[in-house]
Amino acid sequence: MRDLDIKAFIFDVFGTVVDWRSSIDREGAAFAGRIGGRIQALDDVDWVAFALSWRSKYQPAMKIIRDGARPFVILDVLHRENLLETLTEFNVDGLSEPEIDDLNHVWHRLSPWPDTVEGLTMLKSKYIIGTQSNGNIALMVNMAKFGALPWDVILGAEVVGHYKPDPAAYRNACTALGLRPDQVVMSAAHNNDLQAAAREGLRTAFVPRPSEYGSDQSKDLKAEADYTFVATSFVDLAKQAGC
Amino acid sequence: MRDLDIKAFIFDVFGTVVDWRSSIDREGAAFAGRIGGRIQALDDVDWVAFALSWRSKYQPAMKIIRDGARPFVILDVLHRENLLETLTEFNVDGLSEPEIDDLNHVWHRLSPWPDTVEGLTMLKSKYIIGTQSNGNIALMVNMAKFGALPWDVILGAEVVGHYKPDPAAYRNACTALGLRPDQVVMSAAHNNDLQAAAREGLRTAFVPRPSEYGSDQSKDLKAEADYTFVATSFVDLAKQAGC
Repeated sequence: MRDLDIKAFIFDVFGTVVDWRSSIDREGAAFAGRIGGRIQALDDVDWVAFALSWRSKYQPAMKIIRDGARPFVILDVLHRENLLETLTEFNVDGLSEPEIDDLNHVWHRLSPWPDTVEGLTMLKSKYIIGTQSNGNIALMVNMAKFGALPWDVILGAEVVGHYKPDPAAYRNACTALGLRPDQVVMSAAHNNDLQAAAREGLRTAFVPRPSEYGSDQSKDLKAEADYTFVATSFVDLAKQAGC
Repeated sequence: MRDLDIKAFIFDVFGTVVDWRSSIDREGAAFAGRIGGRIQALDDVDWVAFALSWRSKYQPAMKIIRDGARPFVILDVLHRENLLETLTEFNVDGLSEPEIDDLNHVWHRLSPWPDTVEGLTMLKSKYIIGTQSNGNIALMVNMAKFGALPWDVILGAEVVGHYKPDPAAYRNACTALGLRPDQVVMSAAHNNDLQAAAREGLRTAFVPRPSEYGSDQSKDLKAEADYTFVATSFVDLAKQAGC
């Protein structure tokens, strides 16, 4: 590895560490099974389409907070509001409040990509590894227990008080770790996240996830800037980082 | 184990998880070695006495913040202010700013008690395990890397914005985990910490550390209230919790 004084790798999570689309497909079908035919519309849901619609409301909901038009609330709250809209779109009516909470928590049960745990475990042997996600602490902890993600630390929106790509999100993460930005690598499958981190002086690692949105994905297929690392998987990233 | 719906164990760290007194004795002597005889007073320091004096300034420094007379600052800052006072007491003069920072970071290099890692690893197999310390995130992360502490999550003062035993410190930790207080066990070697947690509805685990302050320790030798668990070690606690 080049002679960089890197101490920590922090990670975008949704899409970079875990495969939310196929996980919600699986968990949605399991949820419908638990409801057991009581709501006909639920059995007719195309859960991949449901996942894509739910996810499409994610950035607009955070933008209102980033713009200062709404005080900070955790992502579980935004996910639940967006879920109610998505259920209406799919004509699903009649779920109880605990059932809606259960479905909302599919985001706590997302599965890692096949290379994730091996790569993180390699990186952990030499560096601090942490989340730098817009997800809240409970969501990140439950997901880590579900998927055996070996984080040293859960950072992100609830800890730093800002949603990415707000510049303060990246700066506050470095401050929390007691590190200079150039000692921290922001790692993501999304060019906009990395470019925002680079503007704050962090180093960057791009690991593309070309099927995050499905086989017809058109964005984030390749690196669109000069990142510190460009890797084909977390294992490749760990090897490039000297692990 | 009794039929309790426990999901997480959160831990006091200084004294409960790690042995700060003998660690500072060791690290202080190593620091003096690095300075290499340039400052005579440093070679004469009794590092156990130094550790006890430094630690004695911990509660008074936090009390000013708990009382609202000073805005929240992280523990690394309070430790450094207290270190400067302690160095004066021990007639140590002439350290550079980086050398003072190095010595201040002995708190990042404290060693676990002999049963700590085994017990935490057992508990982690069935529960969320996290810090609920007054230490800041960087301090807790570096200590975890140093001592191989397998935390799922770093909580505590910097995340919850309050120093224990402020009631909000305990309540906010449960909120961050998305759990009810009665699903969370506050674990500590200190009666006052546990009694403050119990008042907020958390469950409690007392694990005495009778040599935390040395062989003449007079307080926290036994449980002074009806705690959920009273254990002789972290391994004993894990066994009582069904691990």
